[in-house]
Amino acid sequence: MKRETLAASLREALEAPDAATLDELAGEHHPADIAAVAAGFDEADRLRLLQRLSPPERAAAFSYLDAPLQLAAARSLARGALAETIAELAPDERVDFFNRLPPAVASSLTPALVHAEREDLRRLRAYPEGTVGAVMTSDYAVLMLAQTTGEAIESLRTQAPDRETIYQAYVVDGERRLVGTLSLRELLLAPASARVGEVMIEDVIAVAADEPRSVAAARIAEYDLIALPVIDDSWRLVGIVTYDDAMDVAEDEATEDFHKAGGTLGDLGPSFRTAPILQLYRKRVFWLVLLVFGNVFSGAGIARFEDTIAAYVGLVFFLPLLIGSSGNAGAQSATLMVRAMATGDVHVRDWGQLLLRELFVAGLLGATMAFAVSGIGLVRGGPQIAAIVAGTMVTVVVVGSLIGLLLPLALNRLRLDPATASAPLVTSIADAAGVVIYLSIATHVLVT
Amino acid sequence: MKRETLAASLREALEAPDAATLDELAGEHHPADIAAVAAGFDEADRLRLLQRLSPPERAAAFSYLDAPLQLAAARSLARGALAETIAELAPDERVDFFNRLPPAVASSLTPALVHAEREDLRRLRAYPEGTVGAVMTSDYAVLMLAQTTGEAIESLRTQAPDRETIYQAYVVDGERRLVGTLSLRELLLAPASARVGEVMIEDVIAVAADEPRSVAAARIAEYDLIALPVIDDSWRLVGIVTYDDAMDVAEDEATEDFHKAGGTLGDLGPSFRTAPILQLYRKRVFWLVLLVFGNVFSGAGIARFEDTIAAYVGLVFFLPLLIGSSGNAGAQSATLMVRAMATGDVHVRDWGQLLLRELFVAGLLGATMAFAVSGIGLVRGGPQIAAIVAGTMVTVVVVGSLIGLLLPLALNRLRLDPATASAPLVTSIADAAGVVIYLSIATHVLVT
Repeated sequence: MKRETLAASLREALEAPDAATLDELAGEHHPADIAAVAAGFDEADRLRLLQRLSPPERAAAFSYLDAPLQLAAARSLARGALAETIAELAPDERVDFFNRLPPAVASSLTPALVHAEREDLRRLRAYPEGTVGAVMTSDYAVLMLAQTTGEAIESLRTQAPDRETIYQAYVVDGERRLVGTLSLRELLLAPASARVGEVMIEDVIAVAADEPRSVAAARIAEYDLIALPVIDDSWRLVGIVTYDDAMDVAEDEATEDFHKAGGTLGDLGPSFRTAPILQLYRKRVFWLVLLVFGNVFSGAGIARFEDTIAAYVGLVFFLPLLIGSSGNAGAQSATLMVRAMATGDVHVRDWGQLLLRELFVAGLLGATMAFAVSGIGLVRGGPQIAAIVAGTMVTVVVVGSLIGLLLPLALNRLRLDPATASAPLVTSIADAAGVVIYLSIATHVLVT
Repeated sequence: MKRETLAASLREALEAPDAATLDELAGEHHPADIAAVAAGFDEADRLRLLQRLSPPERAAAFSYLDAPLQLAAARSLARGALAETIAELAPDERVDFFNRLPPAVASSLTPALVHAEREDLRRLRAYPEGTVGAVMTSDYAVLMLAQTTGEAIESLRTQAPDRETIYQAYVVDGERRLVGTLSLRELLLAPASARVGEVMIEDVIAVAADEPRSVAAARIAEYDLIALPVIDDSWRLVGIVTYDDAMDVAEDEATEDFHKAGGTLGDLGPSFRTAPILQLYRKRVFWLVLLVFGNVFSGAGIARFEDTIAAYVGLVFFLPLLIGSSGNAGAQSATLMVRAMATGDVHVRDWGQLLLRELFVAGLLGATMAFAVSGIGLVRGGPQIAAIVAGTMVTVVVVGSLIGLLLPLALNRLRLDPATASAPLVTSIADAAGVVIYLSIATHVLVT
């Protein structure tokens, strides 16, 4: 059913006196679709829809809503309905949600949750935002060493209803230390009388709870895993990260890197379209103002050569072109580097090889562009100007490219995020270098 | 085992007279690790390692190698060993690999493959690069309407060894039309005597084979699927895309968008570190040279106002600062827009709302920056210059931001990729606008 049709059917079901039609509709559709339709409703209708869904359906739809809509719904839902919803959420969703609630609301809700859930929540909330611990779930399937594979399959069948996945199960010893793993596929293929301890994979790929969440996402992608077990310092199993959470993390991280590359500070929240205007202002103003002062260096560079400019005003014509090329070449190589570092293609130790290659590429690029502009130089200023412009072009493209290449590496060495080597930052630095190079060459040739 | 230790053990096993140690090592380690270690070996050792692995292990490790290493290995491996390897690859991997082989090598290998595999290959290769058809696999698990769930589980057990996944199975009718789906989890929870036709989900989320592959990746992420069925025009099941392939697609697409945003043309291949120098040159030179000519407009703008500049050389000091701010504000809003469009947060129809919000945000940003620079204007040129600089600043930040906002929307309307609204392109356009605005205001105030 198309979302437009679903929206119409849901509106109709809301008008019906009993909840049967609504339950049926919700049962037939993916909660992601219900949430998408609800997001398009106005606030009152959205609330009415959520109120009337059964708790599991409500929780499922709720978990697909954007964070601001979740908060708005939480503020308006009846306390009882909200507590039911929270109880039905998967542990990882629940923690995310609690972390976003105003502290007063969060603590007023905690008593309503049953003991085991409170414990889960307390434990998972203890991991700082951005770590593996904060995105993992504690709903994992466990097997015992002595079970036969037949018993293990039976046990997974029992665990199925409230586990995030039963397709990958984990084997723990008496102290809950992770000693092996088995996929449901491997269990189905093993002889029914074999013991779990005999057929399990002992060399388990795992991640520590306090590592950055991007590490878990990268590991899941690298090894094509359905879930990645999370362990503490004593190798005890504390949770799992599933492939679908890893996908969300990877998308979030790519978006954050994108924003940084464009010169915006950190996390913008879930939506550019709905982010509050003042928040957008705050995220953007820092770099813009900082770069103004960066550009003052370019201005100061120009001021040093005011005599040259006053004598040869024609030089100013080539100024945007030459400093622009320096900045553009820098932005290109910075983008290539930042992304290659984010995907693990390039490491700091490769800098020697990269520098050499970049020198070649930038040299070729500079030569091509020098050729392209020397014609304009010849027409507008004669052979001497053409030579100045061509020489400057080769130099600034090489210098700009090297700045773009080295800045992300240097940031990484200083344990700063290389993605902060934004296009605007690199462009500003390369611009200032371009101004000084151009006017130095021009002054040297024309004035002395 | 750490990769360094694995590398040492593998080297040792290569020296052993028989293959037993090597087989054991390969059995105990993830093929991604074997491939990572092999990539670090020199070419001769890598080849020796691949030659001596058993065909399934060799194919598994091979599929985790980067494309250039795969090609190099294909050129050097004995014809028989290569054919064995290809036969063991998953169909989607096999198609990717064949598509990258030089045509002569590809056609010389085809006869060595058994008939069914040749058919698969022919069919999958028929879908153009970048479509769902080109990334799907034909190794999916199928169930029949009349099977009981007990029989269905038994049938999945039989299909398990050579299916990409058995965790999601597809129900087809006599004409191979997709009529339903069941997860292994749902099968395990259903009563053993129920029929597949009774318990299956009929409202299947699917994708057409000729849609862009990014659509499949987005759908898998949105609905948290393990696999997405691929259908043809008559709703016949032709393949599936699994979550791990979707992760690779999402990463590829994000990388491509990144490169475009940084002003590089299209796909760089798998690695920035190892891409050939001439290829890097070709991908980068297009935008750089194009933008040189874009910057000629800035130069021409300046040339129109040469008299003003000659009379007030001090104005040149503020030139990089003002046009830089215009370009930076434009790069910021273009980045935010491009990413929001890529993740589906923003659609072309939202342009009115976005424009209004951007006007507010850019106005605030411009006012802040005008305040920041008016001090410098006052010190260097007195109140009149300060007023010119502040007025220009507000105008260029607003104009730059709107260019950054509208260019991706316009490209999308013209059915071009909005990611082509690269930072360098937006910066160049905003720069040229900044030059004209600044010198127009200055000429108006100072000269007339």
